[in-house]
Amino acid sequence: MYQCSKDRVKDKIERFSQFGATGGGGITRFSLSREAIAARGEFAKRMAAIGAEIVTDDMANMYATITGSEARLPRIAAGSHADSVRNGGNYDGILGVITAMEVLETIAAEKIPHRHPLTAMIWTNEEGSLYPPAMMSSGVICGKFDKTAILASKGVFPEAGGKTFGEALAASGFAGDEKDRLNPKDYCAMLELHIEQGPVLEAEKKQIGVVDGVVGMFNYRIQTRGQADHAGTTPMSFRKDALLAAADAIKWIHRELDKLPEDLVYTTGEIKLHPNVHTVIPDEVDFSLDVRHWDPAVLAKALETVKGISREFDKCPVSYKEAWSRRRCEFNGDLISLVEKNARELGYSYMIIHSGPGHDAQYVSDMLPTAMIFVPSKDGHSHCEEEFTSLDNAWAGINVALNTMLDIDKNW
Amino acid sequence: MYQCSKDRVKDKIERFSQFGATGGGGITRFSLSREAIAARGEFAKRMAAIGAEIVTDDMANMYATITGSEARLPRIAAGSHADSVRNGGNYDGILGVITAMEVLETIAAEKIPHRHPLTAMIWTNEEGSLYPPAMMSSGVICGKFDKTAILASKGVFPEAGGKTFGEALAASGFAGDEKDRLNPKDYCAMLELHIEQGPVLEAEKKQIGVVDGVVGMFNYRIQTRGQADHAGTTPMSFRKDALLAAADAIKWIHRELDKLPEDLVYTTGEIKLHPNVHTVIPDEVDFSLDVRHWDPAVLAKALETVKGISREFDKCPVSYKEAWSRRRCEFNGDLISLVEKNARELGYSYMIIHSGPGHDAQYVSDMLPTAMIFVPSKDGHSHCEEEFTSLDNAWAGINVALNTMLDIDKNW
Repeated sequence: MYQCSKDRVKDKIERFSQFGATGGGGITRFSLSREAIAARGEFAKRMAAIGAEIVTDDMANMYATITGSEARLPRIAAGSHADSVRNGGNYDGILGVITAMEVLETIAAEKIPHRHPLTAMIWTNEEGSLYPPAMMSSGVICGKFDKTAILASKGVFPEAGGKTFGEALAASGFAGDEKDRLNPKDYCAMLELHIEQGPVLEAEKKQIGVVDGVVGMFNYRIQTRGQADHAGTTPMSFRKDALLAAADAIKWIHRELDKLPEDLVYTTGEIKLHPNVHTVIPDEVDFSLDVRHWDPAVLAKALETVKGISREFDKCPVSYKEAWSRRRCEFNGDLISLVEKNARELGYSYMIIHSGPGHDAQYVSDMLPTAMIFVPSKDGHSHCEEEFTSLDNAWAGINVALNTMLDIDKNW
Repeated sequence: MYQCSKDRVKDKIERFSQFGATGGGGITRFSLSREAIAARGEFAKRMAAIGAEIVTDDMANMYATITGSEARLPRIAAGSHADSVRNGGNYDGILGVITAMEVLETIAAEKIPHRHPLTAMIWTNEEGSLYPPAMMSSGVICGKFDKTAILASKGVFPEAGGKTFGEALAASGFAGDEKDRLNPKDYCAMLELHIEQGPVLEAEKKQIGVVDGVVGMFNYRIQTRGQADHAGTTPMSFRKDALLAAADAIKWIHRELDKLPEDLVYTTGEIKLHPNVHTVIPDEVDFSLDVRHWDPAVLAKALETVKGISREFDKCPVSYKEAWSRRRCEFNGDLISLVEKNARELGYSYMIIHSGPGHDAQYVSDMLPTAMIFVPSKDGHSHCEEEFTSLDNAWAGINVALNTMLDIDKNW
């Protein structure tokens, strides 16, 4: 069994945590921002140092490839994303990029014989924080999204300076050629390591999650409509308060969805209020509802429950619409078995686990054999500055990735 | 009894509705915005046309003054504000400015003899929508606010372009001299007409509200603190969802305050969520609570109730703090009597009423004899594009203002 360098892993984690550091222990590193571009530069510098050829495709996805002994064999890819949510952590995404770098660096440093070209990747804009949607560039490459519509995606925060994604892409200097996209003819597998972003591995005392797929989900927007009136005059009995109605809708959703299996997860994470002024009764509230489960039957039951919401709370009409949904994704069985074999043979504790969040690997899995490796998240926290996994966890996960890549290389 | 010109009133209402028209029937006219400056230009043009002398003070409050037969008598002022909330209506504030203009125009056109100089006014930034706080400039003139702190007030919407109120003031060209401020030595009374912004006059079938004062209020911010985690993974039992806690807090406030006298009004109009992303469990929610009543004892009871809120909902700590509060304001008894006498003698139906919203008149009343006249709001709506009062209502209200001004002129 091969092992990577713990010191080199530590150095990369520390170095990449500087790009977009908030000062609060985490990072804000929106895709194609100055901070993200600095991180890409660090990736390119380190990959160039081991002799990798670096290209970007037309969505700015980055590919750093070292040659193998048989030039005509398809490539084996590993990678993840380098962007973050606002006030995110130092592991989500970037740890998968660090994994891909470390696998190539170990193979280069120790001159491990290998047949296939091996590619370390950065997927552009997985979070979709500044320019929605999430998993943008893997979605374009894999034909899930229309590129023209994606280029027109408008930045949702002031940081975008009013630019679209397409304008930010052009300005970034990282837009390459469409011919360099990951293409199923030229690649035989893709591997992504990620922190779990949940508490299960830690609670079950496992070092490695062998990910069998990504749960299905639906994302709805729920609206309540009231009447905007002055806070100082309108008697309570005359009011139609859309926020009070939304509070009732949120409470109702919790009460009803809590009756379904307890491993269903659902979140009302975003709320928009109009006019959102302390002296005016709110007349429009719009909030998000994100619901996820592995079992399509449970998800269907949850959807039926949501659609049963009252048409009115507190004299305010209630409506809903689907923002998007996705079916569950099942990863490649042979790759899952290889990940499991290597976790076992390296002597790590592991379990089979579903991914709750979406990942680039899920879109890629429609084109190529794909699998994922999870490492534990401390206290289950993610998308926050407290996000953490120990160096030992990261090192173990990368060792699984390294040996899995080499198994693919030997046998595929 | 004198009467103003209904046609001239109609013309002014229509004209001023164009400055900042949203296309949806209302206006967005933040103080010192391009639209507000255009409205000020219209005011100046029309007042200059009747020979008024126009000055602005250091807070950009505008004063248009016509002379009387006895130059050494103190001025009598009337006015209100010309700014609006976002997507506000065509009457709030501006109808009081139109009233003041129409009173002076009628007196000029009909050469009605009068002894005192008469001043029509625009108070700067009553709404405080873009640059908080509300009633900003009357507050500075009357010594309620520290001018230095007010000038540093940062614009809260992108429309401010990052400017402070002081910067917007300097750029507006309307900053005048401190010596031109309304000063109790030079003025003997101030009258403000306003739409009611509530449903009472309409429900009671009254044309005129004789306003005896402004209710007391307190404004609190209530916070809930959760833990930001990923929506896709964190099991429900592990979560601390600050928005769920806020929904419970809002429901609790309604349940408890509804036990107090039914003419208590309270509003949760503004909510801030962090990070406000659909894939992240909210970790910080902050919402406003605005509570108003005429009777200080009822208000004290409401405050005691709010302070009794649970320290925790849904495993999330709850905290609160006062944003501001004000005691009730009682207008000048002699002026209230004059308003009532004129409403009666003109043959209008009227009632004594409290103001729920704050108005510039309330700060001015600490310096000068002050009173207010209300006209009905259709369906009680205000701070919204549907805001409306009929031309007949406006005309009736202005006739009360005209005759009250002339009574003050004769007897004071």
